[in-house]
Amino acid sequence: MRAGEGRKRGRALIVGRFQPFHLGHLELVRKAAAEYDGVVVAVGSAQESHTEQNPFTAGERVEMVTAALRGAGIEAFHVVPIEDVHRHAIWVSHVVSLCPRFDAVLANEPLTTRLFEEAGFKVVRTELWKRKEWSATEVRRRMASGEDWRTLVPESVAAVIGAIKGEERVRSLLQNDKQA
Amino acid sequence: MRAGEGRKRGRALIVGRFQPFHLGHLELVRKAAAEYDGVVVAVGSAQESHTEQNPFTAGERVEMVTAALRGAGIEAFHVVPIEDVHRHAIWVSHVVSLCPRFDAVLANEPLTTRLFEEAGFKVVRTELWKRKEWSATEVRRRMASGEDWRTLVPESVAAVIGAIKGEERVRSLLQNDKQA
Amino acid sequence: MRAGEGRKRGRALIVGRFQPFHLGHLELVRKAAAEYDGVVVAVGSAQESHTEQNPFTAGERVEMVTAALRGAGIEAFHVVPIEDVHRHAIWVSHVVSLCPRFDAVLANEPLTTRLFEEAGFKVVRTELWKRKEWSATEVRRRMASGEDWRTLVPESVAAVIGAIKGEERVRSLLQNDKQA
Amino acid sequence: MRAGEGRKRGRALIVGRFQPFHLGHLELVRKAAAEYDGVVVAVGSAQESHTEQNPFTAGERVEMVTAALRGAGIEAFHVVPIEDVHRHAIWVSHVVSLCPRFDAVLANEPLTTRLFEEAGFKVVRTELWKRKEWSATEVRRRMASGEDWRTLVPESVAAVIGAIKGEERVRSLLQNDKQA
Amino acid sequence: MRAGEGRKRGRALIVGRFQPFHLGHLELVRKAAAEYDGVVVAVGSAQESHTEQNPFTAGERVEMVTAALRGAGIEAFHVVPIEDVHRHAIWVSHVVSLCPRFDAVLANEPLTTRLFEEAGFKVVRTELWKRKEWSATEVRRRMASGEDWRTLVPESVAAVIGAIKGEERVRSLLQNDKQA
Amino acid sequence: MRAGEGRKRGRALIVGRFQPFHLGHLELVRKAAAEYDGVVVAVGSAQESHTEQNPFTAGERVEMVTAALRGAGIEAFHVVPIEDVHRHAIWVSHVVSLCPRFDAVLANEPLTTRLFEEAGFKVVRTELWKRKEWSATEVRRRMASGEDWRTLVPESVAAVIGAIKGEERVRSLLQNDKQA
Repeated sequence: MRAGEGRKRGRALIVGRFQPFHLGHLELVRKAAAEYDGVVVAVGSAQESHTEQNPFTAGERVEMVTAALRGAGIEAFHVVPIEDVHRHAIWVSHVVSLCPRFDAVLANEPLTTRLFEEAGFKVVRTELWKRKEWSATEVRRRMASGEDWRTLVPESVAAVIGAIKGEERVRSLLQNDKQA
Repeated sequence: MRAGEGRKRGRALIVGRFQPFHLGHLELVRKAAAEYDGVVVAVGSAQESHTEQNPFTAGERVEMVTAALRGAGIEAFHVVPIEDVHRHAIWVSHVVSLCPRFDAVLANEPLTTRLFEEAGFKVVRTELWKRKEWSATEVRRRMASGEDWRTLVPESVAAVIGAIKGEERVRSLLQNDKQA
Repeated sequence: MRAGEGRKRGRALIVGRFQPFHLGHLELVRKAAAEYDGVVVAVGSAQESHTEQNPFTAGERVEMVTAALRGAGIEAFHVVPIEDVHRHAIWVSHVVSLCPRFDAVLANEPLTTRLFEEAGFKVVRTELWKRKEWSATEVRRRMASGEDWRTLVPESVAAVIGAIKGEERVRSLLQNDKQA
Repeated sequence: MRAGEGRKRGRALIVGRFQPFHLGHLELVRKAAAEYDGVVVAVGSAQESHTEQNPFTAGERVEMVTAALRGAGIEAFHVVPIEDVHRHAIWVSHVVSLCPRFDAVLANEPLTTRLFEEAGFKVVRTELWKRKEWSATEVRRRMASGEDWRTLVPESVAAVIGAIKGEERVRSLLQNDKQA
Repeated sequence: MRAGEGRKRGRALIVGRFQPFHLGHLELVRKAAAEYDGVVVAVGSAQESHTEQNPFTAGERVEMVTAALRGAGIEAFHVVPIEDVHRHAIWVSHVVSLCPRFDAVLANEPLTTRLFEEAGFKVVRTELWKRKEWSATEVRRRMASGEDWRTLVPESVAAVIGAIKGEERVRSLLQNDKQA
Repeated sequence: MRAGEGRKRGRALIVGRFQPFHLGHLELVRKAAAEYDGVVVAVGSAQESHTEQNPFTAGERVEMVTAALRGAGIEAFHVVPIEDVHRHAIWVSHVVSLCPRFDAVLANEPLTTRLFEEAGFKVVRTELWKRKEWSATEVRRRMASGEDWRTLVPESVAAVIGAIKGEERVRSLLQNDKQA
């Protein structure tokens, strides 16, 4: 890929669904931004929205992630929505074709890790997501039950979710699952 | 959509293929950035690459656009690759689902204009692309014939094209068309 | 959409899978036909067939619905098969592009309701499907177990199912599920 | 398929794009309705709209065809939108899965004819479309140039086109083609 | 389809996922090769790979099946990868369009059986897969747990799996499922 | 990829549409079979059939190629249909996922060459197709005009084309193009 462009280690790729983007995600990106020249944040399952597991559209998530990174003073980043291809064997090519060049993949999910390694990429295991409440599932659970979820996400993400009436959407989608 | 969030006019959407992003595109975005709170640059036909008309991948184009806007000191922007859906009647929904919220569409192509207007969006005609050489077709023609194309694109775009050996790719793809 | 064309309320959209179309569905359409100028019946998940949950093809279901409505003396209707798009954020556009214009959506499923409301459509909650046996699941269960299902569907629907050997198909598909 | 259900010849399938449905199409369906128990009108290339060749959505065309047939007193018909599959070898199965059962195919285009014959269907050549002005291309040409097109289509079709501002759309799309 | 071309019964189709191809599969093909002029082995769910249920790519499975049949001295065969179409009503056409002509289908799964029979094909029930360990699930289970799986597959299949480090892949994918 | 497995150079990939497979193709494969341990023949544009340019289905072409190679005494080969993905940037991954492992690509078309080289594959330019009549276009032209085409293809290919009434199909499709 790209030869080193300075003293840091080139660009890092981070893949997630970010339903929604929370403080754990922010920590991960912050650490990557400190160690690499730039960070490419791939917003996965971009085609999904309006379900209990995936309430937010790709556009809404792109807006959240961008607002959060700017709010945290991170500058050298790209945010790219990535639709699923439902064929693992071509997924890495798909991601590569949609993202700016990157030099390393930060991941700890075994499938992601394996696919990038089989394709010859350098994969760095991440240690994060350690705190139990730093979980998108927990954020959505609190949204649904009326508990406080705002303390788990960056302020700018809470603002976007407020503007799009995201909490109301999560609740109405849960009704769906109960009824069906 | 979004109510006015200050004295400016919200966010503007600009759609293009950017094969590659040239100085005319930059002028258009610069003007939009001055008049709106933010600009969403949608990189269309994201699935296309390695053809004479569309030599660059979506990821390469996202990288070019981002580098050019940062190089020009523009800050409040999003760059989003958009694959074609080959169904005009759902294309606006597709764009909306992948992009951060926007309040106006800057466009002058009749089809784009019509589709957004039928969907109820505010469309503002753009005057740009006035200079004949500010054309992606002209840039690609010069790349193919060995003439100077670097003066037609932002410096940072020329740097990306250099790093990905884009000029060489354009030439080898032209061979293809001649031979076939 | 359409301005009022007389004393009634324009056209109503009803979405369902109709696996198969039963007396509860017919009641819903009958009521809508009395209150609106016309009814658009969208036959959803049109790509599905030959499974336990979705035994009948879209064409077979279009035939059932049409026969039932004609048999009930309803005249101003359209029956349109709609394939799933697996992207909720563009689903309303997809339906709109395939159906004649409509002025209201009759629905009570929260996801359908929410998607049409987010898109700015008037949604009217339906009260129907009250009787337990007015359920497509119950019809299929009886087909599978050899109990009487014919009393749960319009006569013309029973005739179509007979002509396509639908009961036999439902049974052979259940074998599949038991074996697998 | 279906055994004879009376003295006529079962149901006939007619496939077209109907951009828009004109008097020639109506004559064809009228003749079929007289000779068969029912007619299935398949509205092809359902995914196309908003182009010079295909200005109208599938939903708009379904509405036109239905209005025209009802206006002509034809009763036993189905109108079904069919998206292209871009694989000729499975196209007949695709049509069969979306349409009510049919016993004969009325066609004179060699590809349609051949595909249905290879699949074992009875194909009856049609003699229609004899008059030069009974052509959707001519209708669209007149719409674009401001000449009288209303005399070439059923009155109810002209009414639908008026209600959806179809003439204006055709003209704005032509601008597009001139400019590009 | 094809008329008899000699004293045998034409070509037989066998459909499976072959994740991986084991001795039970080989017995089935061997028996078919003895009774028919040729065997078409369709490698289904070709788009799947890198999951616990479907660890191997279509290409890897094509290589395994071919190696096994050649190793067993079988000569008149074709091996064809078939992607799922997710529409049962067109699946038979899809298979037919991708495979050399065949005269009979060897199957015992009710859905496969039903779809081919509805399409007018001759289906012959198979008796095989009798031994409990002749199961791809069992082979994958042993790979995951470190037990001996090589005795359940043809030698040439074990060689391919070794060359592509298949056992290691199966194990790393299982980690995935445990963690998620 | 694969380390050398003997004194030859591993497996070679050859990609073509083979509409139909002619003597020039056979020479190319024969030469490759002499120099490599095995040959993978990828039958491209597998989704195409029943057009003037692409009259034969993938299955028919797989049958032709296999018959021709067996007829020529070639043994170590695989024939794999490959559907187009309409995204050049992922095409190599797509081919790799469907084919047995290969060590070199024999090609002279610039796009194919470039895509495999960008992906890091060894590409060997081929010199063949030198004789003017060794062209699938010429074979189809002769089929259409009633001239002798059988001398341009292997005997076994002519037999397959005869059995599927391919010449008749080519002619009827040409009628289509003339009429439209």
